[in-house]
Amino acid sequence: MTPDDSGLPIRRSDPALLTELRSIVGERLSVAAAILDRHGRDESYHPVHAPDAVVFPRTIDEVSRLVRACAARRVPIIPFGTGTSLEGHVAAVEGGVCLDLTQMDKVLAVNTADLDVTVEAGVTRKRLNEHLRDTGLFFAVDPGADATLGGMAATRASGTNAVRYGTMRETVLALGVVLADGRYIRTSRRARKSAAGYDLTRLFVGSEGTLGVITDVTVRLYGIPEAISAAVVAFPDLKSAVDTVIATIQSGIPVARIELLDALQMEASNRYSKLNYRVAPTLMFEFHGSAQGVVEHAEAVQAIAVDFGGADFQWATKPEDRTKLWQARHDAYYAGLALRPGAKGWPTDVCVPISRLAECILETQKDVAESKLIAPIVGHVGDGNFHLVILVDPDRPDDLARAQQLNERMVARALAMDGTCTGEHGIGLGKREFMAAEHGDALDVMRMVKRALDPTNIMNPGKILPAVGPEQ
Amino acid sequence: MTPDDSGLPIRRSDPALLTELRSIVGERLSVAAAILDRHGRDESYHPVHAPDAVVFPRTIDEVSRLVRACAARRVPIIPFGTGTSLEGHVAAVEGGVCLDLTQMDKVLAVNTADLDVTVEAGVTRKRLNEHLRDTGLFFAVDPGADATLGGMAATRASGTNAVRYGTMRETVLALGVVLADGRYIRTSRRARKSAAGYDLTRLFVGSEGTLGVITDVTVRLYGIPEAISAAVVAFPDLKSAVDTVIATIQSGIPVARIELLDALQMEASNRYSKLNYRVAPTLMFEFHGSAQGVVEHAEAVQAIAVDFGGADFQWATKPEDRTKLWQARHDAYYAGLALRPGAKGWPTDVCVPISRLAECILETQKDVAESKLIAPIVGHVGDGNFHLVILVDPDRPDDLARAQQLNERMVARALAMDGTCTGEHGIGLGKREFMAAEHGDALDVMRMVKRALDPTNIMNPGKILPAVGPEQ
Repeated sequence: MTPDDSGLPIRRSDPALLTELRSIVGERLSVAAAILDRHGRDESYHPVHAPDAVVFPRTIDEVSRLVRACAARRVPIIPFGTGTSLEGHVAAVEGGVCLDLTQMDKVLAVNTADLDVTVEAGVTRKRLNEHLRDTGLFFAVDPGADATLGGMAATRASGTNAVRYGTMRETVLALGVVLADGRYIRTSRRARKSAAGYDLTRLFVGSEGTLGVITDVTVRLYGIPEAISAAVVAFPDLKSAVDTVIATIQSGIPVARIELLDALQMEASNRYSKLNYRVAPTLMFEFHGSAQGVVEHAEAVQAIAVDFGGADFQWATKPEDRTKLWQARHDAYYAGLALRPGAKGWPTDVCVPISRLAECILETQKDVAESKLIAPIVGHVGDGNFHLVILVDPDRPDDLARAQQLNERMVARALAMDGTCTGEHGIGLGKREFMAAEHGDALDVMRMVKRALDPTNIMNPGKILPAVGPEQ
Repeated sequence: MTPDDSGLPIRRSDPALLTELRSIVGERLSVAAAILDRHGRDESYHPVHAPDAVVFPRTIDEVSRLVRACAARRVPIIPFGTGTSLEGHVAAVEGGVCLDLTQMDKVLAVNTADLDVTVEAGVTRKRLNEHLRDTGLFFAVDPGADATLGGMAATRASGTNAVRYGTMRETVLALGVVLADGRYIRTSRRARKSAAGYDLTRLFVGSEGTLGVITDVTVRLYGIPEAISAAVVAFPDLKSAVDTVIATIQSGIPVARIELLDALQMEASNRYSKLNYRVAPTLMFEFHGSAQGVVEHAEAVQAIAVDFGGADFQWATKPEDRTKLWQARHDAYYAGLALRPGAKGWPTDVCVPISRLAECILETQKDVAESKLIAPIVGHVGDGNFHLVILVDPDRPDDLARAQQLNERMVARALAMDGTCTGEHGIGLGKREFMAAEHGDALDVMRMVKRALDPTNIMNPGKILPAVGPEQ
């Protein structure tokens, strides 16, 4: 028992609570150490914080009853999807009950005529696209991991297609959410637009489980384009590659993907994904449209790239070649990790206005060189978003200290450029310390919203909002 | 003096308040009846509710001090732009001080390299586009009226371009907002995407002045397309026209605009805008892209339209012809009003999933016929959004009763189709009664947010949220 902010005891391993949880989910509850451990870690360097119990609900009603049971005892609730987040989002820092939603995995309604689909929170993006295979439609948001749609909505996930199709912010049409008091709401209707009150959909997208548990997700779909073409282009230096991106975006050419990998990442990806590209700063492009349109856009971008010294254009028009290319891109994180066997990743990302992107990346690369750490750079550069994967041995305090400094310098630089401390990974535990610098008094508005929707602070406590003395 | 929810008196015409307001804005304060009256009305049938005073701030600091002065006395604050809203958004239903923001009319920063611009809230959409004329960029959101960007953000405005470029929801990158306690915040950075905490930008977009006063707006811009082509097509009946829209959207052809006008609206627009189109259900299209792309898309849509009986294609490729065409479309509301001299408009709009659009429009047209009222139908049909402009004599209770019934039936139908009670006009006063039916318990979440950000209910009280006994 530990005191909470009101002085009441939190009885998180209360046997009566476990009995009540079992009365809701039966055998779908675990307190086995291995299961708890797996649910207290993500794919990053963040230390494990295991929950006290893990439950596997299968219905909205079960989620609602689980939340009520925890709420009655002020026990924290941590929603969990695939555990592939990168900023400690799922760490049970105050203990509590982890709601593993992966058994809520039904595709509820495919509305091909309306280009949308509603799924339970535990459906993953790859499974959804397999399900959609015969419809001619696809779900466009593609973070590296095969994450669940609930998790992707909760973290406002993004990916390589965002420059053309948007992030989860633009893609989610409506959410089903169980509130901190156990009530279930739908945040919106399926209409493409609405001016009917506050935008609760966007409020819950990116809220990282701190305002409620997302149980179902309605997202937009897009028609698979008539023609798709991808190209890989090597550049003499990083600046030339980034300047090509900036010129492409400013020219308004509708690229579907435009990804940057630095020379180190290319080396890592060649090795991990068994590719044979030149080890040089590289852009990966994809174009979607009509047969004619794709050729037109590709030629326009090629002309820009050549102006900046781009060479060795390799085109991938066959589906299997493109699949291999983008799988390699999605595996960039794991490829980076393999550069230093046994290392953990300290993955960080920022996003800046496109006009500042070259400067931000180049200065970051200088910092990396000075840090003596291994840290490849990759980025969804069409959005002004890039990542640094700093390889650390979590048992070496010196590694962690240097990684932290690298991260702090990168974030400070992005903020000074009117950018954000994270373009797509989220805040979780890892970036709370930057929230005040980024948001100023707007952080207080976030606190007001949090207190209003979760007055006893049971929904994934300790995430997003930095501590402010005893009450948060 | 009237009691507020806490039993404290609201001293709205307190001479000390007027003195304090004058100390902030000097002579830029009016209590003249004509000025008060003009600020208590919009462009619809809603009755005038004049504020007690109108102030014309010119800086964020002035807005902040005005809000603090009112907040100290619990006096309502109503932000005002051009007064072109349609659901009573600016009505001072509890009296108070109107903040006319039209003197905050500076374009603060055009970032051509980042395709964005920051303006003060009082800049109108046409002035912004004039300002941008030499940049090759344009601001895409275009409601009928030449509204201010502050007002457009506050009402989540939309328009004919939304099917391609999005509404204010997608277009606003960041807002400056003065909170109910007088503090100024920026809701976001200029980066194109962010996962850094709750999406305050989207929370304030569409909040109709009930959570704070929007003082500045950063929006995305787009490059003026290389080629633009517009077409007007007449159909034998409304169903054929709507079915053409549905097939076009489902096929994924990237139309920039796709507008429906029924025969009555065409008659009204021909007369008002001195045009000579066939009086028949009509679609107006626009295509944006490369010279080749525009031809390709136009041909694809033409083929669909011909399949559904579309005829009399009239192409407008010259800029002056297109300007005339779209000005006529934007004037559709005023053209409709002219059908019944002296009448006021009861404009209403709904938005439904595109698969239900034909059914929704046809049943609405039947209701119109039975109502014996004059009510043309126009719509941004590519989004599933359409409008009915019911012409009423506000002095005839029978007119109002029939219009109300028509509106209620249309909204109920849209909700039954998983649509929304308003696609773009907003809730204001006029649609509060539908909020519970549309949102269920999610309406409580909106109330929680409102109470958290505006605990004394001084920010445009009486809007969006329906009354629930004494405390709201």
